[in-house]
Amino acid sequence: MRTHYCGHLRAEHIGETVTLFGWVDRRRDHGGVIFLDLRDRSGIVQIVSDPERTPDSYSLAEQVRNEYVIKVVGRVSQRPPESLNPKLPTGQVEIYADQIELLNEVRKQMPFQVSTAEQEPVREELRLRYRYLDLRRERMSQNLQLRHRVNRAIRRFLEDEEGFVEVETPILTRSTPEGARDYLVPSRVNPSEWYALPQSPQLFKQLLMVSGIDRYYQIARCFRDEDLRADRQPEFTQLDMEMSFMTQAEILELNERLVCHIFKTVKGVEVPRPFPRLTYAEAMDRYGTDKPDTRYALELVNVSDLVADSGFKVFSGAVKNGGLVKVLPIPGGNEVISNVRIKPGGDLFKIAAEAGAKGLAYIRVRNGDIDTIGAIKDNLSEAQKQQILERSGATDGHLLLFCADAAEVVNATLDRLRQAIAQEMKLIPAEQTNLLWVTEFPMFEWNADEKRLEALHHPFTAPYPEDQSDLKTARAQAYDLVYNGYEVGGGSLRIYQPDLQQQVFEAIGLSAAETHDKFGFLLEAFEYGTPPHGGIAYGLDRLVMLLAGEDSIRDAIAFPKTQQARCLLTDAPSKVDTRQLKELHVASTYKPKPKDS
Amino acid sequence: MRTHYCGHLRAEHIGETVTLFGWVDRRRDHGGVIFLDLRDRSGIVQIVSDPERTPDSYSLAEQVRNEYVIKVVGRVSQRPPESLNPKLPTGQVEIYADQIELLNEVRKQMPFQVSTAEQEPVREELRLRYRYLDLRRERMSQNLQLRHRVNRAIRRFLEDEEGFVEVETPILTRSTPEGARDYLVPSRVNPSEWYALPQSPQLFKQLLMVSGIDRYYQIARCFRDEDLRADRQPEFTQLDMEMSFMTQAEILELNERLVCHIFKTVKGVEVPRPFPRLTYAEAMDRYGTDKPDTRYALELVNVSDLVADSGFKVFSGAVKNGGLVKVLPIPGGNEVISNVRIKPGGDLFKIAAEAGAKGLAYIRVRNGDIDTIGAIKDNLSEAQKQQILERSGATDGHLLLFCADAAEVVNATLDRLRQAIAQEMKLIPAEQTNLLWVTEFPMFEWNADEKRLEALHHPFTAPYPEDQSDLKTARAQAYDLVYNGYEVGGGSLRIYQPDLQQQVFEAIGLSAAETHDKFGFLLEAFEYGTPPHGGIAYGLDRLVMLLAGEDSIRDAIAFPKTQQARCLLTDAPSKVDTRQLKELHVASTYKPKPKDS
Repeated sequence: MRTHYCGHLRAEHIGETVTLFGWVDRRRDHGGVIFLDLRDRSGIVQIVSDPERTPDSYSLAEQVRNEYVIKVVGRVSQRPPESLNPKLPTGQVEIYADQIELLNEVRKQMPFQVSTAEQEPVREELRLRYRYLDLRRERMSQNLQLRHRVNRAIRRFLEDEEGFVEVETPILTRSTPEGARDYLVPSRVNPSEWYALPQSPQLFKQLLMVSGIDRYYQIARCFRDEDLRADRQPEFTQLDMEMSFMTQAEILELNERLVCHIFKTVKGVEVPRPFPRLTYAEAMDRYGTDKPDTRYALELVNVSDLVADSGFKVFSGAVKNGGLVKVLPIPGGNEVISNVRIKPGGDLFKIAAEAGAKGLAYIRVRNGDIDTIGAIKDNLSEAQKQQILERSGATDGHLLLFCADAAEVVNATLDRLRQAIAQEMKLIPAEQTNLLWVTEFPMFEWNADEKRLEALHHPFTAPYPEDQSDLKTARAQAYDLVYNGYEVGGGSLRIYQPDLQQQVFEAIGLSAAETHDKFGFLLEAFEYGTPPHGGIAYGLDRLVMLLAGEDSIRDAIAFPKTQQARCLLTDAPSKVDTRQLKELHVASTYKPKPKDS
Repeated sequence: MRTHYCGHLRAEHIGETVTLFGWVDRRRDHGGVIFLDLRDRSGIVQIVSDPERTPDSYSLAEQVRNEYVIKVVGRVSQRPPESLNPKLPTGQVEIYADQIELLNEVRKQMPFQVSTAEQEPVREELRLRYRYLDLRRERMSQNLQLRHRVNRAIRRFLEDEEGFVEVETPILTRSTPEGARDYLVPSRVNPSEWYALPQSPQLFKQLLMVSGIDRYYQIARCFRDEDLRADRQPEFTQLDMEMSFMTQAEILELNERLVCHIFKTVKGVEVPRPFPRLTYAEAMDRYGTDKPDTRYALELVNVSDLVADSGFKVFSGAVKNGGLVKVLPIPGGNEVISNVRIKPGGDLFKIAAEAGAKGLAYIRVRNGDIDTIGAIKDNLSEAQKQQILERSGATDGHLLLFCADAAEVVNATLDRLRQAIAQEMKLIPAEQTNLLWVTEFPMFEWNADEKRLEALHHPFTAPYPEDQSDLKTARAQAYDLVYNGYEVGGGSLRIYQPDLQQQVFEAIGLSAAETHDKFGFLLEAFEYGTPPHGGIAYGLDRLVMLLAGEDSIRDAIAFPKTQQARCLLTDAPSKVDTRQLKELHVASTYKPKPKDS
């Protein structure tokens, strides 16, 4: 066995004879003396094979090539002063190889270089196709090890500090009430019946509270058959928690300590507690989103009241229709953003249009003067313009971008513009860690297609007690954790009183028969002595992605799938034997569309 | 929040005011003073509500019933001498309830009693249907908490002592080469293609070794669509490990320390190391099985050579046909086992018949004399009988049970009889922990149906180097861990040389085209610098079952399925909406057989 990992060797080991195993990261022949960088998951160390000093290892050192697997026995030596490498943790030492053993070789052309010295980007398709080589590269190896340390930190905290019990919940389970986006599995033993893979362990964790488990956690695999977006995967991992007999304040406090423990252990960063809290209403008002990135300012300003009766119909009309007029004030924006970019065809206009806006109005503040054009110029009074400037804190050099429309459109538009402009103007301090809770979500949102209220989180979320008299407008005891503009966790207190639960079902238009059909066993369970309880779930892939400083969750997952839900390594999904389908009593009904000839 | 768990209160807390949450385990009204046993996951404590001393809590104490959820605030007091309960960990104290708050009640008739005082067995069907109440009972609550402690002990050891990295491998993956017993999942995005749920992470963990992860572990969910036996589940959990650059001896040594750590941490039992090792050949010879329970003797004795040319055709014929004649010597068996039980119709005969035997011959040793009947009496010479007695160590009172047939039949028969008789004669020391390795498995076994060799473990298992010249009879570098007669783990060193791998595929009759088709991506991966590696997997459900002293793995799983692969709680699998199936481009082809009318 090895005596040391390569990357752990230091000056203190000088003089020791060590046994190392690893891959040849690089091989250099310096006029007869051969240098090998030997790499394992911990890093690299330099091996020297000199035909005079270590003749036994030399003929093998001559034969090896990059990525060959070797065993090295040799003595740790001080590097000569001219070859010290302060950038490398092992840069003070080198190993004189008494013995090199070839364990395995490379028999094909490498599709890309693995070496730590190689910085060329590799196409993601190629990385996923040869994932085992991609994971051998320093970056991905470090990401997997980081993920491991995150899991470990979570488990230690929850188990040792807080008495959580890890319980595994089923993966072959029942299709959720909504059914949409469930992965289904035909049952051979129960023909014509199907299991579903869980979108989350929600029902089971609430049942565990009924069981008195009191504090449950699981690092759980979840499944959702969505049309994939950049940061979604068909299967994803959730840190799932549920606890009994705790208030919302107690749950948030415990979770802040958990998150601080993760940051401290994994990144060495001390995050101050308590985390800032924004209500949903505040977050939407100031940032246009319920997951604001608060590392930079650029807050939105609501000016609806100021322009409600202006002659500018775009503004007054929006307010009249129940919408909003909000402004994004951009200090220094005049310098950076030209009119062309804001008008139809411009990049900022496009961002706004994608969010549903019909256009953007704007005001520039220059030399203490207000510079507007078009309808806004003629239809806002001087007093209105001054009030807007005052409220938005605009001074010389400010560009004010206006959006007037339904509230959702205004918020979505200015949220996206805010992010794009912060990026462009380099306002985001990349190394900063902003964590905050968004609270007091509405219980319901209006589903315009089905013309009914639906639960914003899920129908088991508890309203605030003081809001129970009017559930339709009630705030939920729900909370999201936002990390640098990403939602990394979310949860709520749950309803544990059957009569209140019934009222919530009525509010979303479910009859008693429907609720029994959809949630029967859970509602029945709640009849047998259910403790007050609540919980939270964290998207672990995304959390690891952010901690690793990556942009794609695929870089936080060992074997991810593409946005077409394929594994390029194993080529899953795939055709299967018809005999296999027959045994399962199922068939594909897919008829490819005939191509035009 | 609570200040203490109920079950943790001791004499040292006397005088403290505590806040407790839990369920009313039992309520007794002793002439005006009400006693409640309050229960949470830690145990129970006695609450006292006295109309004179604690009038505020009394009216509520009068109202509550079993399994109501309450909060109690009160002072820990010394119990009076006459009501000390030494059987209860909290039996020295009781809580005078200053305040009782009703948090939730029970609205339906309980299907069974949850109380720790209730020892009546409950039908398993009812337990599974109301699993949330079953898990509230002490036994199952303890089992879940034990399982948690096992996971915890495993993780601590592997992470802290041995540097293993936890990596999650996919659950939506590709159908295995054999395909049989895979659960399949239709892909909506890639119509007519299917994912499979993994029977184990085998391929991925070997790929992680190619990636240089070096030491991998995962507590991994696995799936196998088998016709269910008593101790099988459609989904099960495996402790999965793989490691590079280690010999078999090093892997076994590491795993022995892991297992000892689990026993020490979870049960407080010191298991001596190293564990005994039996080769497969020895195990089959002495016990007729590769997973012998060595807590009792009753070893089998091979007498084939002694009777090969006897006149008793059943014996000599078996040997002539390549089979065996073995004897199970049972000390004291004369007293316990009558002739009737051995002959056709008897219970031991039935056991033998189920294992494939046509019958059993026997000899009784009585008063120094040999007592036989039938063919065996007439056809074995005195010398043969004496040799048999000598070899089997038979003395007065011994019953010798013979089986003569093909080796598999003889071994299976005598293995089952050995177990049944040990049970009946109470030879099994229940509290003893016998752990042993079975090693040197054959590489292949003969598949009589398909008339070809097949891999006993899997085709990536490495043969012993000295056996490579004749692979068909080679021993594999494979090992199983046996715990009191159960296989709880198994693994092997893997082949990492492409040419050897090719020879193994040839031995099991796979062409190059077939191997490429079945294992293409894995074999390709092995071309790029694969380290020597090996691994092991433990059946965690079974291990927990044994540690918990349970007979069924369902008692080691929070939400298990029945032997019909159903979840009685959620009623999975179930019918789904045809719209859902349409979206997935699949249909059920099941036609129920028409019933006779």
